[in-house]
Amino acid sequence: MSTANPLGINLSFCVKRWVTPELWAPVVRNRLDLDLVQFSFDLVDPMWPASLASRHARDVRKAADEHGLTVHSAFIGLAHYTFNQLLHPDPNVRTYAEQWLERAYCFAAEANIPRVGGPLGAIASQIDGHELPSIGAEAYGALVECMLRLGEKAKAAGLSELYVEPTPMRREWPWTIEQARQMMVDVTDSATRWSLCVDWGHGTYQPLYGARADTMQPWFEALNDVISAVHIQQTDYQFDRHWDFTEAGRVVPQEARTLLARTGLAQSPVFLEVFYPFERDSKSILDALEASVLSLKQAFA
Amino acid sequence: MSTANPLGINLSFCVKRWVTPELWAPVVRNRLDLDLVQFSFDLVDPMWPASLASRHARDVRKAADEHGLTVHSAFIGLAHYTFNQLLHPDPNVRTYAEQWLERAYCFAAEANIPRVGGPLGAIASQIDGHELPSIGAEAYGALVECMLRLGEKAKAAGLSELYVEPTPMRREWPWTIEQARQMMVDVTDSATRWSLCVDWGHGTYQPLYGARADTMQPWFEALNDVISAVHIQQTDYQFDRHWDFTEAGRVVPQEARTLLARTGLAQSPVFLEVFYPFERDSKSILDALEASVLSLKQAFA
Repeated sequence: MSTANPLGINLSFCVKRWVTPELWAPVVRNRLDLDLVQFSFDLVDPMWPASLASRHARDVRKAADEHGLTVHSAFIGLAHYTFNQLLHPDPNVRTYAEQWLERAYCFAAEANIPRVGGPLGAIASQIDGHELPSIGAEAYGALVECMLRLGEKAKAAGLSELYVEPTPMRREWPWTIEQARQMMVDVTDSATRWSLCVDWGHGTYQPLYGARADTMQPWFEALNDVISAVHIQQTDYQFDRHWDFTEAGRVVPQEARTLLARTGLAQSPVFLEVFYPFERDSKSILDALEASVLSLKQAFA
Repeated sequence: MSTANPLGINLSFCVKRWVTPELWAPVVRNRLDLDLVQFSFDLVDPMWPASLASRHARDVRKAADEHGLTVHSAFIGLAHYTFNQLLHPDPNVRTYAEQWLERAYCFAAEANIPRVGGPLGAIASQIDGHELPSIGAEAYGALVECMLRLGEKAKAAGLSELYVEPTPMRREWPWTIEQARQMMVDVTDSATRWSLCVDWGHGTYQPLYGARADTMQPWFEALNDVISAVHIQQTDYQFDRHWDFTEAGRVVPQEARTLLARTGLAQSPVFLEVFYPFERDSKSILDALEASVLSLKQAFA
């Protein structure tokens, strides 16, 4: 067996709970015994006043140093994802979303986080709910142009890599392997490299992809040259669950590790990304996370 | 039987789908056959540039006029709720959250929406996950002071009422009937009246309140003089589900209507508030909403 993937955690579990580095760094380091983190922009809004965002960036850098944590990347959370981002029907909202990303790049650079990513955006639904097969050529063309501008901005900020996270929705992009490949081709000349972060519960969403989508294998095999990060979650393939591994589901950590190795992705960091109901008590979440990380570590050790 | 409650819908179901008034107004009016709306700040971020937010406010006013809709109130959505708002441990984040609300009041006034509300904020979790019994006296005192300042700001903007939405969490406030009563007493002198909007799935969250919390009756009986809006949802009392009424759960619309009438709340508008997974297809959501609204109408007719 080849080298196992570096195992880390997305800070999605910290939202509304361990909201500052002084809180989440010891949870990750001491309670979960991990040293690799993906920061979530559900903890800092890059649109906060510059002095406030800067202070939080310095706090992230300091806490990571003090606790021996590597913050691999910073990812868009559910708060910003809410507003349709770079594909909102209103061009001025799209412009604001682009400015949001520029601010996110500056935050990341100041926090010593070299990579930023997430989903790109969503078009609106039709009034009758009918789904178009995809976002359309014009919207796609403008999106690629925006990604190239963002590549320049990320370079100026000093970042090393930008991520697109494919999502299982026709209203977003890319949602197929072919779209993801085409997009990676179309942004080849970006001043900052664009890569894919794929999520175990996205490529296996059977209501969209069909019953055969019970494995990430097609995504990994077809795109392993452009995938450089992976989100893992427990899920039943019926929704994008983002459960932890104390829940019953279809993802088996040992099989996940084997699949990644077999498809040439043994080097890619794997981040546990889980979301909990706001009302669930924090102690039970830490217990469940501890057990989940343990089972992932046994597989990825 | 006394008059039935006015029935409306919170625009939570529109998030990332029917994101502009040109999209959601016909869905609410023609598809769901409702004329009463609670706007969601998951559709407009009040921190958007003033000219952009103003344009969206005018669009809301225009679409409501054209479709014969009354927009009763505008409520904080999940995006802003994410950042701990007025109880974040960082005082500068709290200040930003207060500014956010001032902008929200101006947006609402320009959109011809007379009331604004939502949850107030959340303290952070302890590193070990242990839950404090409540937010603490100092945080509470500062929160009440902030609410009184906000009362002045809302009056200046021209609003008629502000809402607190109690949530079933010790990290937020108020989460008990007694806390809610005390808070209403403490803000009696506000320049704009503060009221409660209670949610059917909050007061019945049994993991916090115990097995006897299988009804909203205690909340309604104890607080009917300060409740002037109600969120309804289908739920199993085990989590704050925000399901629609095509799901199996514990809430029976006819019993809900009877309880409201019996506790002196027959005048209070009732808003269906449901959330769907981002990846669910929009057509199935409209079908489920149509059936849900129909079953609520049969009860509340």
